[in-house]
Amino acid sequence: MEFSASQIAEVVNGKVEGDPNVRINYVSRIEEGVQGTLSFLANPKYTQFIYQTEASIVLVSSDFTPEKKVKPTLIRVDNPYSAFAKLLEMYNKIKLNKTGISEKAHISKSASIGNNVYIGEFAFIGENAKISDNVKIYPQVYVGDNVKIGIESTLFAGVKVYADNVIGNNCILHAGAVVGSDGFGFAPQDDKNYMKVAQIGNVIIEDRAEIGSNTTIDRATLGSTIIRKGAKIDNLVQIAHNADIGENTVVAAQSGISGSTKIGKNCMFGGQVGIIGHLTIADDVKIAAQSGVGKNIAKKGEVLQGSPAFEISKYRKSYIHFRNLNDIKNKLDELEKKIKEINP
Amino acid sequence: MEFSASQIAEVVNGKVEGDPNVRINYVSRIEEGVQGTLSFLANPKYTQFIYQTEASIVLVSSDFTPEKKVKPTLIRVDNPYSAFAKLLEMYNKIKLNKTGISEKAHISKSASIGNNVYIGEFAFIGENAKISDNVKIYPQVYVGDNVKIGIESTLFAGVKVYADNVIGNNCILHAGAVVGSDGFGFAPQDDKNYMKVAQIGNVIIEDRAEIGSNTTIDRATLGSTIIRKGAKIDNLVQIAHNADIGENTVVAAQSGISGSTKIGKNCMFGGQVGIIGHLTIADDVKIAAQSGVGKNIAKKGEVLQGSPAFEISKYRKSYIHFRNLNDIKNKLDELEKKIKEINP
Amino acid sequence: MEFSASQIAEVVNGKVEGDPNVRINYVSRIEEGVQGTLSFLANPKYTQFIYQTEASIVLVSSDFTPEKKVKPTLIRVDNPYSAFAKLLEMYNKIKLNKTGISEKAHISKSASIGNNVYIGEFAFIGENAKISDNVKIYPQVYVGDNVKIGIESTLFAGVKVYADNVIGNNCILHAGAVVGSDGFGFAPQDDKNYMKVAQIGNVIIEDRAEIGSNTTIDRATLGSTIIRKGAKIDNLVQIAHNADIGENTVVAAQSGISGSTKIGKNCMFGGQVGIIGHLTIADDVKIAAQSGVGKNIAKKGEVLQGSPAFEISKYRKSYIHFRNLNDIKNKLDELEKKIKEINP
Repeated sequence: MEFSASQIAEVVNGKVEGDPNVRINYVSRIEEGVQGTLSFLANPKYTQFIYQTEASIVLVSSDFTPEKKVKPTLIRVDNPYSAFAKLLEMYNKIKLNKTGISEKAHISKSASIGNNVYIGEFAFIGENAKISDNVKIYPQVYVGDNVKIGIESTLFAGVKVYADNVIGNNCILHAGAVVGSDGFGFAPQDDKNYMKVAQIGNVIIEDRAEIGSNTTIDRATLGSTIIRKGAKIDNLVQIAHNADIGENTVVAAQSGISGSTKIGKNCMFGGQVGIIGHLTIADDVKIAAQSGVGKNIAKKGEVLQGSPAFEISKYRKSYIHFRNLNDIKNKLDELEKKIKEINP
Repeated sequence: MEFSASQIAEVVNGKVEGDPNVRINYVSRIEEGVQGTLSFLANPKYTQFIYQTEASIVLVSSDFTPEKKVKPTLIRVDNPYSAFAKLLEMYNKIKLNKTGISEKAHISKSASIGNNVYIGEFAFIGENAKISDNVKIYPQVYVGDNVKIGIESTLFAGVKVYADNVIGNNCILHAGAVVGSDGFGFAPQDDKNYMKVAQIGNVIIEDRAEIGSNTTIDRATLGSTIIRKGAKIDNLVQIAHNADIGENTVVAAQSGISGSTKIGKNCMFGGQVGIIGHLTIADDVKIAAQSGVGKNIAKKGEVLQGSPAFEISKYRKSYIHFRNLNDIKNKLDELEKKIKEINP
Repeated sequence: MEFSASQIAEVVNGKVEGDPNVRINYVSRIEEGVQGTLSFLANPKYTQFIYQTEASIVLVSSDFTPEKKVKPTLIRVDNPYSAFAKLLEMYNKIKLNKTGISEKAHISKSASIGNNVYIGEFAFIGENAKISDNVKIYPQVYVGDNVKIGIESTLFAGVKVYADNVIGNNCILHAGAVVGSDGFGFAPQDDKNYMKVAQIGNVIIEDRAEIGSNTTIDRATLGSTIIRKGAKIDNLVQIAHNADIGENTVVAAQSGISGSTKIGKNCMFGGQVGIIGHLTIADDVKIAAQSGVGKNIAKKGEVLQGSPAFEISKYRKSYIHFRNLNDIKNKLDELEKKIKEINP
């Protein structure tokens, strides 16, 4: 895919300065720009690079005034970074714009398939599944019986959605994500064997949620495990049965949310965080990477660290002393000695 | 699926009180009961809800004596919770009762396939694989050459079992689980490159084990990695080469057991626990979430926390002081000052 | 597969002592040797076992002098362990020596397929993908459009490689590994919703790298996420967008490397390690299991532990005091009391 400066200017509502016919087929950072790429200048710190860059086109602010001669064609826009992001997104959409239903997919007779969908090779669509308009289902995806997938959602290669789960509109599920495996529920017996507790609930993923690759979300024992609107879940995250992840909450990679825990809105969890079961976490809470949460967090906007986690600035102070614990111990031993000298 | 009160009473060996023809198609908690569902009353704390619930049928204890008028049909049983669990399990069995071999599966000629099995679309069954009676293999499962799968076991969508591994009877493997990938073994060379150590052992999963979604179990270098009878392994767990997980041991999500470590019976590990290699852990040991075990645990029933882990009550005390380490340090500094005043 | 002592001697360049026709079909440890297996004696500590073992063949050093009668056939070699490793590797190669392209695979017309490749059932090869000579692609693998895979590489069952990624020569990717899912990049909006930042870079895996099962490697936002030559990545590891993993660096299971972090050569990270984003880590650095790295590491060969991590011997000292923090606190309280007595 190649685009000319004038084509790009039209898309981003910009003004060309230089050769409108110069063409690019990729993007670059301004400091690493090579011919045939488009770059942008947003941060004034990088201004020096516009006089050196080999990029063919650079998006600049409408009020940018060069101090020397500039080699690339410029496109003047109100906000160069936003314009750049918009171009990336368009490029991505064109690239990912698969359609058509492969004859090598398996689509159950009772499934309902919307318009303009993509269903790739070796994908499986179960009985009574409902695939809405503009959904993209990549090869080797498994969509179990009675699953509903809302419009414009994308399931990348090898996603597995067990029966009876619900995925909203404009969701993205990355490769290998598993939705709706059994919750980890076992009743101990007198002979120390465990009896499996049947898990007959489901998972509901609301609109605009994104689920990372190889992340696992267990179905509820009864009722639903819920990922609310706009939540972003990174790779290799574990969401246990009956958990409830609030709107626009962001969970970084390898974190684990235990069963029946309810997380508020707009929270941010670092990587490898663990949260035990049956808790309630307030809105806007931030948890530092590798922390473990063992208690309810009732106060909105708390920022915690540690395992178990407590207030982050307090944790950091404690940790500085932990690093010096050997010195602290030595000082204590000295004082003890001195006191013995004073008062033997 | 709909069931009448009299049908259910027969299954749970109960006595109907009220309309025997009322029908339900799902279950609910008594406090959230809606029409068309079945609920249960086991905990006396919830007795109040039986006078309000909209559930159509409620399982109650044989000796339950209502104090007011009760709207739902009652079914009297010896143990309402057990009866409820039994019904859930039956419901689940009916729902998951797939059979038949898809023509779109690939079954090698030398594979042996038992009676009444389910093999879904795009499943692969390798040479000399042995699939026993009543096994369920969901779509896109990979069963390598010479793999043996015992009766009544279920492999959900996308499970991958490498060649030569053995899965017992009544096991459940959830979507995306990997059994038998190479152990992580490399011999350092003089030029700092690593030479791969061939991993020619296998994995044995014994009867009644359950393996969570996207969990990985590596094959042994030589011999076998073993998951013993009734062990329950949650999602995203790593079991390294030559590890040996004891009978009825429970490992929560995202824990990792390193190579050649032998875990006893009836242990319970919280989430995100890590255990280093070549250790022996006694029976009945419990490890708190996010802990790391770096030494053998010889004493049965130990309960540990921390990274590295030590006795849990001692850990908790230490952690309380860790939280207050700034105060401790301040007090120490004060004492130092005072001593200097006393004895300058 | 059965081999005679004389066949084996030829392969390892050894000298047979005993029956050259005795045959083996597997290997064993000398202390557990059974008939029909080959074992080796390298460590003098194990010499006693050669007089008891039931192994049919034992590889011994050229200068080994038995003190008693030895039952198995011996093969004398310069280095018994190396010879054994070589045999294992050959055995493994024979076992894994699949070839042929299944008619049940889907190969796009514009894909280029080398000589002597294996492409298993239900594998998907995208448009313009390039599969080099001697590559093995197991069933249910997904190779997206424009992906390049170098000679002699193996992708085990269910590996997913998104479009535009590059895999070098002699790489091994284990089952369920995901290469090239979107980086976790979202721009917060005024309404607290997140806007997805398009991820249009790729992943480059260089020669001789090994990637564990269900590990996830995200594509770069722009540019490339890079796994350099000979790096070994274990199972369930997360490598975020634009990370760069140095040559021959070894990352154990369940570790996570955040976005844009650059790791040096020959590093070794234990299991469940976390490294935050935008850091630079020097060559030869070692990080203990479960540690978290929050700062650049400029010094070659540092060995760190803790979360956040610091110098390992210092960490260990601090941790000993942490374990005794209750005693330390008690002593402090006592001193305080004494000082009050001295100077009330």
